[in-house]
Amino acid sequence: MKPLFCLLLAALIPVPGAIVHAQTPETTARERDVLARLMDAGLRDVGSYGLLKELTGKAGHRLSGSPGAEKGVALARDMMVRLGFSKVHLEPVTVPHWERGSPEDAVALLPGRQSVRLKVSAFGGSIGTPRGGITAEVVEVSSFEELAKLGTGARGKIIFFNRPMDPVKLNTFEAYGGAVAQRSRGAVEAAKVGGVAAIVRSMTLALDDVPHTGAMRYAKGTPRVPAAAISTRGANRLSGLLKGGRSVRVRLRLTCRSYADTSSANVIGELTGNEEPEEVIVVGGHLDAWDTGDGAHDDGAGCMQAIEALSLLKRIGVTPRRTVRAVMFMNEENGLRGGKAYAVDPRRQAEKHVALIESDLGGFAPLGFTIEGDTTVVPRVLRWKPLFDLIGMGRLVKGSSGADVSPLVAKGIPGFGLDTENQRYFDYHHSANDTIDKVNPRELELGAIAEALLCYLLSEEGL
Amino acid sequence: MKPLFCLLLAALIPVPGAIVHAQTPETTARERDVLARLMDAGLRDVGSYGLLKELTGKAGHRLSGSPGAEKGVALARDMMVRLGFSKVHLEPVTVPHWERGSPEDAVALLPGRQSVRLKVSAFGGSIGTPRGGITAEVVEVSSFEELAKLGTGARGKIIFFNRPMDPVKLNTFEAYGGAVAQRSRGAVEAAKVGGVAAIVRSMTLALDDVPHTGAMRYAKGTPRVPAAAISTRGANRLSGLLKGGRSVRVRLRLTCRSYADTSSANVIGELTGNEEPEEVIVVGGHLDAWDTGDGAHDDGAGCMQAIEALSLLKRIGVTPRRTVRAVMFMNEENGLRGGKAYAVDPRRQAEKHVALIESDLGGFAPLGFTIEGDTTVVPRVLRWKPLFDLIGMGRLVKGSSGADVSPLVAKGIPGFGLDTENQRYFDYHHSANDTIDKVNPRELELGAIAEALLCYLLSEEGL
Repeated sequence: MKPLFCLLLAALIPVPGAIVHAQTPETTARERDVLARLMDAGLRDVGSYGLLKELTGKAGHRLSGSPGAEKGVALARDMMVRLGFSKVHLEPVTVPHWERGSPEDAVALLPGRQSVRLKVSAFGGSIGTPRGGITAEVVEVSSFEELAKLGTGARGKIIFFNRPMDPVKLNTFEAYGGAVAQRSRGAVEAAKVGGVAAIVRSMTLALDDVPHTGAMRYAKGTPRVPAAAISTRGANRLSGLLKGGRSVRVRLRLTCRSYADTSSANVIGELTGNEEPEEVIVVGGHLDAWDTGDGAHDDGAGCMQAIEALSLLKRIGVTPRRTVRAVMFMNEENGLRGGKAYAVDPRRQAEKHVALIESDLGGFAPLGFTIEGDTTVVPRVLRWKPLFDLIGMGRLVKGSSGADVSPLVAKGIPGFGLDTENQRYFDYHHSANDTIDKVNPRELELGAIAEALLCYLLSEEGL
Repeated sequence: MKPLFCLLLAALIPVPGAIVHAQTPETTARERDVLARLMDAGLRDVGSYGLLKELTGKAGHRLSGSPGAEKGVALARDMMVRLGFSKVHLEPVTVPHWERGSPEDAVALLPGRQSVRLKVSAFGGSIGTPRGGITAEVVEVSSFEELAKLGTGARGKIIFFNRPMDPVKLNTFEAYGGAVAQRSRGAVEAAKVGGVAAIVRSMTLALDDVPHTGAMRYAKGTPRVPAAAISTRGANRLSGLLKGGRSVRVRLRLTCRSYADTSSANVIGELTGNEEPEEVIVVGGHLDAWDTGDGAHDDGAGCMQAIEALSLLKRIGVTPRRTVRAVMFMNEENGLRGGKAYAVDPRRQAEKHVALIESDLGGFAPLGFTIEGDTTVVPRVLRWKPLFDLIGMGRLVKGSSGADVSPLVAKGIPGFGLDTENQRYFDYHHSANDTIDKVNPRELELGAIAEALLCYLLSEEGL
């Protein structure tokens, strides 16, 4: 497009430069001033992106129990110290320890010694196959109901769960929610009918060659069988091979295994409140990330936004009334041990939590916050809507806040989730695609600015 | 994030699946049904992305007067025929013809035979340098005022305009508007003070090695000097070399030149209205694109969205009351000849245009529409806001619609611009980065769905 029209367009759209002078009756001059200074500090010096580059570049993947996770812990602590946070410390968390190992592959064996390689990725928690792999006929199903109807027809087979995420859902998280049971429960349901392994279509709306991993679980009393994701293109290929009821054998080889639980930590630092220091606002994300990518969006983004939110408040000279605390939770992906440990740590006894904010929907352009709490919470938060509307983040609606903060939210403390424009999220989620080149620095930073503003408001005015 | 929380989250957010059953008093059941069917058809079979892949893959760049532009014209016409549009035809447009040529480079010459290569890209319309290039001392300025103050100090020099787009602006188009005069008028201002060439910091908020081209102009009575963009990293490098008043000579070599005007066309097809066929709703974008990339976002996206909007209406079985017309305008980037020709073509005499819709802000997640018209237009459009709110596109605000439709909008016909989440736009704009891998299929298609819905409403209800 051309400059003239950009100028015309720009002139007609509310912009942050106008914030300080805005005559919006619902916001105070002080609030607008803080917002303008947050926008200036954040967008001029996009701190969150530099932090995320450091985290993903130096630690890489950060699956619980891995060296990367421990590097992530050390890096986050160092960042907090470097940025001058108070009371920087680690709180211990005992975490599961599972490793993917190598090789990890699958091959469809066709008549006449032909074969087709399929891209697979074991699910976290899966057992491995025997050394030579599991070779068995494949049966494709699109639901657990369809599987149950196979009866003895599934015995001895590899069960191929191939129901796609529903592309018609506008909300990609809803599409994920409608398909992800195949991943989390696929191995159990396969074993129930005598299946020997589960292969599951990747949880993504993209058509590509990248498998997407994630957590799965076993059930007591049901045999444990290996389970892995297959890329969406691979799933289409395998489904094509099976067309017309043709018999296809696949050799699946996984080398993954679980080890004894190990020690890790939540990383915590704060800006101590100068009037009500024992009243705490938490802002955080989870430091652990699946081992196939760098966990840039999930959830390095949320962690670095939390650190940047505190750093922004410091940079603009705000000393909060209440304590604003950044928490990097460990082990959200396959245990939630960090979130649970934070909630019951003895240090919590002397504290009163005002609210908890989590960012775990990727470092995309923020739309606002989802809010969890009793019926009085949303109306009280809505008094700040005009302020968030000034930066296009006024979608303040009831909704889930985040997994890590859920143990305290379950006790009645209000929770906030940073809501994002999420169409691209599952292109990257839990896969080798989740790397920093998929993160736009400004979109990431705007999330940190939104969190800093919410922390400021909660700190000054309470809920 | 984990599945359980996704499910909780999804359950609390309005989703299109709920549209048909929604009890929103402001929308009719028929409107909600059309919206639900558009969402289903569009997101299940993302037509716009396939079309864009075809356009960018087969035509590549489409600068006016180039073979790519003519391939684009033929491809767009073929698509319209293939999709069963009515009255598919070309309307002639005489366009400027400028070619970049090769080589195109710049080198900073340092003491001791050292040199630093700088990535540059001539601006469209620039003259070339002499065959051996122009070698001259460089002077850096951040504004025309600063340049004017140099007086005779600028004589014989290459003027280096290095004012960045203001990163603090939330609206990236406003940041663009505040810097782009350096590109469009840089050569003229440089020549006025005796400068021999202009080198301009690229119009982007990203820091990288990719120069961003765009249109520039000369003024009668002022000597013509060559002008080119330099990448933002190159600009920082050059500025660093100049620090402390050091003298740096640069050799700039451009091989670009203008040719005689040539013939091209707007590409037009429609769904003819079954009740008021002479009343027309236009939906379009510009087919031409700068020659450094494939013009995927700018504006292949807008063109293919317009074709897809009509195709969607056909796919869900809507025969519009009024005529819904897709127009691929030629030559927005360096002449606007297509928009001007469309407005005055004799065929317009027998027609009444109800409204014109343009998408030229990239194929990103749509937020709503900017609306141009007299004071009664926006309030009338706001009756549809509840419907657009159902798909998160309810930002219906006064604002510029688009360059191509501006000649008719200037005559009082209401204009609509598809508004997008634009933080990433200038990472790609007018550069080698503007390729299809930067387009998310769902974000692109959602824009086509929004346009199809607006076309439907305008066709059924008028304005």
